[in-house]
Amino acid sequence: MSRFEESIIEGRNEVIEAFRSGKTIDRLFILDGAVDGPIQTIKREAKKHGVRIDFVDRKRLDTVSVTGKHQGVIAYTAAYEYAEVEDIIRNAEEKNEDLFVFILDGIVDPHNLGAIIRTANMAGAHGVIIPKNRAVGLTATVAKASAGALNYTPVARVTNLKNTVEDLKKRGVWFACADMDGKTVFEQDLKGPVGIVIGSEGDGVSRLLKEKCDFIVSIPTRGDIDSLNASVAAGVLAFEVVRQRYC
Amino acid sequence: MSRFEESIIEGRNEVIEAFRSGKTIDRLFILDGAVDGPIQTIKREAKKHGVRIDFVDRKRLDTVSVTGKHQGVIAYTAAYEYAEVEDIIRNAEEKNEDLFVFILDGIVDPHNLGAIIRTANMAGAHGVIIPKNRAVGLTATVAKASAGALNYTPVARVTNLKNTVEDLKKRGVWFACADMDGKTVFEQDLKGPVGIVIGSEGDGVSRLLKEKCDFIVSIPTRGDIDSLNASVAAGVLAFEVVRQRYC
Repeated sequence: MSRFEESIIEGRNEVIEAFRSGKTIDRLFILDGAVDGPIQTIKREAKKHGVRIDFVDRKRLDTVSVTGKHQGVIAYTAAYEYAEVEDIIRNAEEKNEDLFVFILDGIVDPHNLGAIIRTANMAGAHGVIIPKNRAVGLTATVAKASAGALNYTPVARVTNLKNTVEDLKKRGVWFACADMDGKTVFEQDLKGPVGIVIGSEGDGVSRLLKEKCDFIVSIPTRGDIDSLNASVAAGVLAFEVVRQRYC
Repeated sequence: MSRFEESIIEGRNEVIEAFRSGKTIDRLFILDGAVDGPIQTIKREAKKHGVRIDFVDRKRLDTVSVTGKHQGVIAYTAAYEYAEVEDIIRNAEEKNEDLFVFILDGIVDPHNLGAIIRTANMAGAHGVIIPKNRAVGLTATVAKASAGALNYTPVARVTNLKNTVEDLKKRGVWFACADMDGKTVFEQDLKGPVGIVIGSEGDGVSRLLKEKCDFIVSIPTRGDIDSLNASVAAGVLAFEVVRQRYC
């Protein structure tokens, strides 16, 4: 698989094989109403790996199919391999730097995710952590929007962001939750090991995750509209960390 | 015309009328080889208003046409009305603030332009100035990406950015050109009347315009890839102005 392409996998055995060989499945389409053995196996594998299933009609599968032999199931593998949270920590350790990581709570726009990974790389962040559910994964569009940053900046995908934040807090990382209120980011000390938590485009950071954070930081806006674009907000926060650490 | 939609105008008299009534034409398609009187008139009007003409074949026009009666000419009007540079200056004066304006040298991606207008609004900038040529105008995509900011933040379109910069310099505005080298933006005083000059996605700020600027500012990046996304870079610079002025 080319590093920058999504791969489509069609057919029952092919999709079961993809799961078993450890490929990361991003999207899974199954014919609505199919209940035979292999389909049950695929459903079990999907559940085990936290992959959401879209049940669709035959017409939809026929449209999406490249080979014409989908047998009621089509999967897309990630354009890119995910890293582990440990890879991100090691990345900081190897550079002998305080950890600097982004936690993205439900970014759904692939252009935003790609742009944030690009920004994270350019700001010298050690990685990006995204959730498995209700968020875009590392699709081809994300890879393209990252402008090559996915080659360098590890992106980990976790089941539960709150647990990840708790684990990292125990290891001395402080978490700053981006929000509309709170101290401005320019007044908050961000020089130690830090995780910047960015919310989804529509809803911001979820309440439970916000409660886990050590402080809230806001960007002092002076405008007439609701909010900044999520990737622009991430950029402002990222380079405030850079300013405080290195300038 | 709805404020957020591009309008399509078809037919010779209709397009001539659009020019004469002062509508801003963003794109103009003319049948390749057409040389009759009305077409000549349209070409003259296009030249007068600095509108680029795309000469296309009949098949292309038929595809684009909504009415089926294009008579060899189809025009798109801007999704939004342009402001004048004077409107931007007045905006600052009315708020009793030092001028804060963005000069965009050839942004071609409508999502980037929209995001920068959104950022400009949220940072309290008084307006955005774009060039007539080799840049995207206020299309429906730009309006959408601006998330409503186009309702508030004036965008002026000028024939020659260098002349505009020179005029504004005479009126006491200082210009900071975003580039990869130069002093970091965090070290540069941006508290007075200031114009931030951002280059195109591919080429940066053109040499001649850069030479007109008072200083070069860079964002201190620490990454492995080439550059930040243009709208993210604009965001970092915009909120550094906010930090210096108000925080």
